[in-house]
Amino acid sequence: MEPKPAAPGPCPGDFRVAEAAAAAAAASSLNPAEARAEPGRRAPSVAAVLPAGGSGERMGVPTPKQFCPILERPLISYTLQALERVCWIKDIVVAVTGENMEAMKGIIQKYKHQRISLVEAGVTRHRSIFNGLRALAEDQPNSKLSKPEVVIIHDAVRPFVEEDVLLKVVTAAKEHGCSDYDLEFGTECLQLALKYGHVNAKLVEGSPDLWKVTYKRDLYAAESIIKERTSQHICIIMDTKEDENHVGHHLEEILKNELNHVEVTSGALCPAGRDLKQIILEQCYNYVCVNVMSSDFEETQRLLNMLEESNLSIFYPVVVISVYFLDYKSVHFDQKVENLMQIREYAKEVRKRNILLCGLLIYYPQDEQKLQASLREGATIITTLIKERNSGLVGQLLIA
Amino acid sequence: MEPKPAAPGPCPGDFRVAEAAAAAAAASSLNPAEARAEPGRRAPSVAAVLPAGGSGERMGVPTPKQFCPILERPLISYTLQALERVCWIKDIVVAVTGENMEAMKGIIQKYKHQRISLVEAGVTRHRSIFNGLRALAEDQPNSKLSKPEVVIIHDAVRPFVEEDVLLKVVTAAKEHGCSDYDLEFGTECLQLALKYGHVNAKLVEGSPDLWKVTYKRDLYAAESIIKERTSQHICIIMDTKEDENHVGHHLEEILKNELNHVEVTSGALCPAGRDLKQIILEQCYNYVCVNVMSSDFEETQRLLNMLEESNLSIFYPVVVISVYFLDYKSVHFDQKVENLMQIREYAKEVRKRNILLCGLLIYYPQDEQKLQASLREGATIITTLIKERNSGLVGQLLIA
Repeated sequence: MEPKPAAPGPCPGDFRVAEAAAAAAAASSLNPAEARAEPGRRAPSVAAVLPAGGSGERMGVPTPKQFCPILERPLISYTLQALERVCWIKDIVVAVTGENMEAMKGIIQKYKHQRISLVEAGVTRHRSIFNGLRALAEDQPNSKLSKPEVVIIHDAVRPFVEEDVLLKVVTAAKEHGCSDYDLEFGTECLQLALKYGHVNAKLVEGSPDLWKVTYKRDLYAAESIIKERTSQHICIIMDTKEDENHVGHHLEEILKNELNHVEVTSGALCPAGRDLKQIILEQCYNYVCVNVMSSDFEETQRLLNMLEESNLSIFYPVVVISVYFLDYKSVHFDQKVENLMQIREYAKEVRKRNILLCGLLIYYPQDEQKLQASLREGATIITTLIKERNSGLVGQLLIA
Repeated sequence: MEPKPAAPGPCPGDFRVAEAAAAAAAASSLNPAEARAEPGRRAPSVAAVLPAGGSGERMGVPTPKQFCPILERPLISYTLQALERVCWIKDIVVAVTGENMEAMKGIIQKYKHQRISLVEAGVTRHRSIFNGLRALAEDQPNSKLSKPEVVIIHDAVRPFVEEDVLLKVVTAAKEHGCSDYDLEFGTECLQLALKYGHVNAKLVEGSPDLWKVTYKRDLYAAESIIKERTSQHICIIMDTKEDENHVGHHLEEILKNELNHVEVTSGALCPAGRDLKQIILEQCYNYVCVNVMSSDFEETQRLLNMLEESNLSIFYPVVVISVYFLDYKSVHFDQKVENLMQIREYAKEVRKRNILLCGLLIYYPQDEQKLQASLREGATIITTLIKERNSGLVGQLLIA
């Protein structure tokens, strides 16, 4: 749905409007008489309006900031994802300029966003919000949207909004009246709402994460935050039973020292530990496939198939590191390396589905102390690949 | 010098005080009668005071933010470097807590910072500034510091301050009187100065880069900014004359498309282009050593020696990528790879001096189209290594 832009007049609908802004979140009601009524008896029906018509002038980049890519996905998709996760937000209305309408439709389709409606942005942020609210008002013909009791206004460039903050602003929109003290520290939007909208307003404490991507440095920060969050949970898939071969378990112990949340499961050869499917469902974005007994890609291929089926990599790149050991007793170095170089072809293939595959060959000297050093080096490489999450090095066979 | 902390009283010295803060920089004079006198006839003598006694509570990390590492160097060292570069700042006084005094001395020594004096921080930022000013006042016994006309107060956690902004605040400190309008948007420190210090104040426009590292996300942003800045200038060292071997020049053309400031020079075998020593002196932090004719480390070793002699890598990690080609006509793959694996030992050695060395082997197929694809892949790997500047992958022999 794309209604024509309208001149802002009295705000359409008689629902309440809540805004989640910077360090403080502003919640306001369009109907002051209702502000102190119904103190949170039941969950109100909620929708969200995202003004996303900005041009990104302060950013110093040609792309409007809401469309700037972070790990190859546009910023606005992260914000939509954060709102979508909140099941009690029934509809999300995004206001974009006519020239970005098609790009926005493409983003919604590519990342399978749900419950999104698009409206045309106005020339100012406030007109965009107005257009969004108008789309939610019940007198719109042919609208699939249901009229909500509370509308959250949320900037498209605040990707890290959490459910608890949204709940706070919605509750505040239902419960609170006006306070001059609170308004003193309010946002520009809140001031305008008070001046022209005869609304009640209340500041709600937000979190530092609610900050707005304004400058290029904020894009950098957002990327690092996303990288940090996606590198927290690592799953090690072992192809050996405990005590069968100590090198795998040595590596496991070292990785547990280096990384926060390490979980170990076993491969097809040795089914034990938690089900890999379950771990994928819990959105683990990092996999280390330890091949102690084999030097083929069977286990890795099994994992890659499961990952591809799961669609896990739609939102974030998934890192898969296939680890092998160079045991001088067995095959010759050159033969093993040449064999493992096939990983380049696998990597090229899964790269298309946002899976970043690398190989890691770890030296396996007989000397226990040297082995420990070798394994620590391997763990450093694994940690680096997981934390950088960079597609430039996929298909490489790294050596520790 | 570490004077005992003193109770703040009237500010010591009769110099003027200027502060470079967030988006606006505040300049104030301790002597209102002088504020409109001497309108910038000659360059005043200038010193800087850095309050660095903060505990970093908002950061969510145990280390105070000014000591948090960025590319393994503490944040405060970047700020000191920014001030040191400004030759007309005669003395830099840093106020640190007693418990961080030894660490701070270590930082000054390690990064060879000049013109720095240390004083003990007070319990508040203002007491720390007071202690710094007191050290600069001429009545201090045994002081090596010369009494300045203007003192710049600069937060230790604003690493990206530029000379032009500092010059603006110093000029303003010399020239301007008080303005209520300006003060309305001033910083907390400026308000206090007006209230208790009977000083004049003037806001000076700063730049967005002057922002303060407050949250963990700001550290991420600072790291990315530093990585971006150090990856701008790349020097390619070619071991072949023009038209002697076209593969080297193909790679050069592709890299020029991918990177901003690419400069080409020649190695010992073929002395041409600008002098490598000059390029190092101009603080180029990225070197691609293209070995078309050879498969040894001679050129790379020559570059590494020059880099080590230059001390360039004291402030930022220097990336060196040694590129080789796998020409099917010449030596066998395995032999070449095994030979080039020696790069691990070189890399371990120069890593100690903050030089990040990697090898890159580029396939050289006869088919022109395949060769172009291979070279583009090589350029992607080079770009990735330069932009990530991560020590976790040093010594690897990557393959394109």
